[in-house]
Amino acid sequence: MLRLDLNNLFSERIGPEGIDWPAMLAAHARSLEVARDALLERKSNPEAFLGWIDVPEDTETLRRVLRYRQANGWVEDLVVLGIGGSALGAQAVSAALGNGSVRLHFVDNVEPEPIIGLLRTLEPHKTLVNVISKSGSTAETMAAFLVFRQWLELAVTDWKKHVVVTTDPAKGILRPYAEAEGLTAFEVPPSVGGRFSVTCPVGTLPLAFAGVDLESLLAGARKSNEQARGALEHNLPAQTALVNHLFSQRGKNIVVFMPYSTRLRYLPDWFVQLHDESLGKMRDRQGNEVRTGTTAVRAIGTTDQHAQVQLFREGPRDKLTTFVRLLAPSENLEIPAVKGLEGLEYLFGKSFFELLDAEAKATAHALAKAGQPNYTLALEKLDAYNLGWLLQHLMWQTAFLGELWNINAFDQPGVELGKEYTYALMGRKGWETLAQELKAEGVE
Amino acid sequence: MLRLDLNNLFSERIGPEGIDWPAMLAAHARSLEVARDALLERKSNPEAFLGWIDVPEDTETLRRVLRYRQANGWVEDLVVLGIGGSALGAQAVSAALGNGSVRLHFVDNVEPEPIIGLLRTLEPHKTLVNVISKSGSTAETMAAFLVFRQWLELAVTDWKKHVVVTTDPAKGILRPYAEAEGLTAFEVPPSVGGRFSVTCPVGTLPLAFAGVDLESLLAGARKSNEQARGALEHNLPAQTALVNHLFSQRGKNIVVFMPYSTRLRYLPDWFVQLHDESLGKMRDRQGNEVRTGTTAVRAIGTTDQHAQVQLFREGPRDKLTTFVRLLAPSENLEIPAVKGLEGLEYLFGKSFFELLDAEAKATAHALAKAGQPNYTLALEKLDAYNLGWLLQHLMWQTAFLGELWNINAFDQPGVELGKEYTYALMGRKGWETLAQELKAEGVE
Repeated sequence: MLRLDLNNLFSERIGPEGIDWPAMLAAHARSLEVARDALLERKSNPEAFLGWIDVPEDTETLRRVLRYRQANGWVEDLVVLGIGGSALGAQAVSAALGNGSVRLHFVDNVEPEPIIGLLRTLEPHKTLVNVISKSGSTAETMAAFLVFRQWLELAVTDWKKHVVVTTDPAKGILRPYAEAEGLTAFEVPPSVGGRFSVTCPVGTLPLAFAGVDLESLLAGARKSNEQARGALEHNLPAQTALVNHLFSQRGKNIVVFMPYSTRLRYLPDWFVQLHDESLGKMRDRQGNEVRTGTTAVRAIGTTDQHAQVQLFREGPRDKLTTFVRLLAPSENLEIPAVKGLEGLEYLFGKSFFELLDAEAKATAHALAKAGQPNYTLALEKLDAYNLGWLLQHLMWQTAFLGELWNINAFDQPGVELGKEYTYALMGRKGWETLAQELKAEGVE
Repeated sequence: MLRLDLNNLFSERIGPEGIDWPAMLAAHARSLEVARDALLERKSNPEAFLGWIDVPEDTETLRRVLRYRQANGWVEDLVVLGIGGSALGAQAVSAALGNGSVRLHFVDNVEPEPIIGLLRTLEPHKTLVNVISKSGSTAETMAAFLVFRQWLELAVTDWKKHVVVTTDPAKGILRPYAEAEGLTAFEVPPSVGGRFSVTCPVGTLPLAFAGVDLESLLAGARKSNEQARGALEHNLPAQTALVNHLFSQRGKNIVVFMPYSTRLRYLPDWFVQLHDESLGKMRDRQGNEVRTGTTAVRAIGTTDQHAQVQLFREGPRDKLTTFVRLLAPSENLEIPAVKGLEGLEYLFGKSFFELLDAEAKATAHALAKAGQPNYTLALEKLDAYNLGWLLQHLMWQTAFLGELWNINAFDQPGVELGKEYTYALMGRKGWETLAQELKAEGVE
């Protein structure tokens, strides 16, 4: 159960009389319905990259993933070679819900020392390498794959058993390579972009090894689909998209995403990518320059009360904060009394969850009192069902915002130039002219 | 050796003729010199919280820390109970330079499940608990201490050997408790605030167990002191403070901090606290309202090229980015050629560091080309000396910015209200009236 609590938006009065949310929602009903209908209509077009909507319905692929996991009980370490959308979803969910039976390692950078360290520590006989790249051309992931493939080949008798590929069903260079070598391969549906891929094998394959209840994760995601397709008064993603839209129109260019949970510590990183890469666009669908936009900022409660909250409260009023709060713990712990530390008496006999919860409420209220608007997404508890619901909710929210802003939330043209410069600097064939241009500009 | 590369500021022309940095610096020489002199003059006043400047000179305290570490060779797991400034420095430096001989665990939140998990996994006989709180009243840290103390008492014969306290030499409730119980205790100098405490025992004690070369870390910090006290043309902290100041004046309200290194993955978190808590202030020293300010955003290269760089390049022009780049690896790794993957030929035979370095340069240049200003702090390599230099540099930069903005960079008044609400919600004696008020406002 996902609940939306808008109480702390009040200090920043959106309407003239404070917030009358049903009225506000009614005033924007038309544009939200147009957005929803446009998304559902475009869904059948694979070029629209809306495949993530239907992926949670695909229980056949999930069964194949689970069979593969069951057939490979020998795995003790799973190395995920993936970056950005190919890593962040599994990272966030495994940190929240993984049972630790298989250790997950994410190679999401090319700094040599950590890779060398990992190769020295891992036992190849017990290691499975999952290389994830939709295009098969991601430089970081493929560089790592070249090294890990060789490492396995030199150390085990059948290296192919130790590699599983997740890539496009047809395009790119990994698919033909997997076929030629007879490697097990799973599909990234062509209509699913990296940052929307957590419920397809990009996320589910590593998460199966992490011991996450994937049926429930997908069931939760389907619950958000139900809301997103339905009437506005129960359409949480449309509602949170509207809140974000209204505050961005009022000049807030920063959105803070702050779960009160260490287990959810990587969820903000996943959200930051989802938000920034989807919504950070220079041109709208008609090619007009976009002049506004919001930047997502990662925070964790209570931890960041001692790091960022000073600024969130007293700093410039340029922020809208989303809190994520759990309504109940999975397991609780009592704070014992200790003689000689009576100054802490107010903690004695209370529970850690009570303290966490009090601080979450206190911070949200203190921000509101300072005129810093915020709202809370409350999860009944932290399990696969509720987390799946939250993930899909945030994907829908992002899609709705893209529609409200009339931008394509499903491409990422802005990363191309950096890739081209990298090719030129790495001396790739065909990029000699650009390399010369860069040299003339002092970059070599 | 720390180097400043301002080449990629050019696209956002600060001066009418593009950037003429020496001239720009000369134009602001007076205010920077006033700032430096004010900081150095206030240093002798403990209430000014400038103790961090002289801490790296205090080799006597460091010797005591190292003796304690040597006398406790039995430790296999070190649990740091600390939050915010009591955790972030040691976390950043140990991730970058720790040798893994002792495992460090940071308890920096009060979510019950991760604490329960840690208590179940740790072997008490081999565990040392370092409780770090200057005031001894930090709710999260002290709640964790109450639990860990009891856990040790029940499991080992001499629990006091397994606890080491880092706190104020006189104030607060931890100091008298440590004395009454005969616990080993180290000092947080009264003139050093949490976010400036990495070179005092708050940072050095855990880092001694992590195997970090602390003499070199402090020597590096002293090198930055030398620069900060010296003439402007070699005063890197004054210069980066000026860059930040000029762009904030031009409406950039977001500063991105992006090292190209997985080993430096927690450095942005440390910087975010340093920046946000120091500079996010509502009032200047005269009590006037401050209307501007900047929010720090965490990023890691290359990883965030696949998450945030789309927005950094194509999104709103509201950002100034600081890159941190390493000029040489500690150890490198070659990318092997693989038959069947000739599409990756440009990577064959190259090294991981070459790829990392090319991507760092490519991204910085691509941002500049899009009119997104950025500069680079280049470290000769990632070792204790250079990292100590960088940490102290960033502390000085923050202090200079506080002076340029005429705010107190060394307090954090904005976190008080949240603490008071927490006391009220936790039913602490003396907070009944506030609890009633909160209830009337719907918070309970």
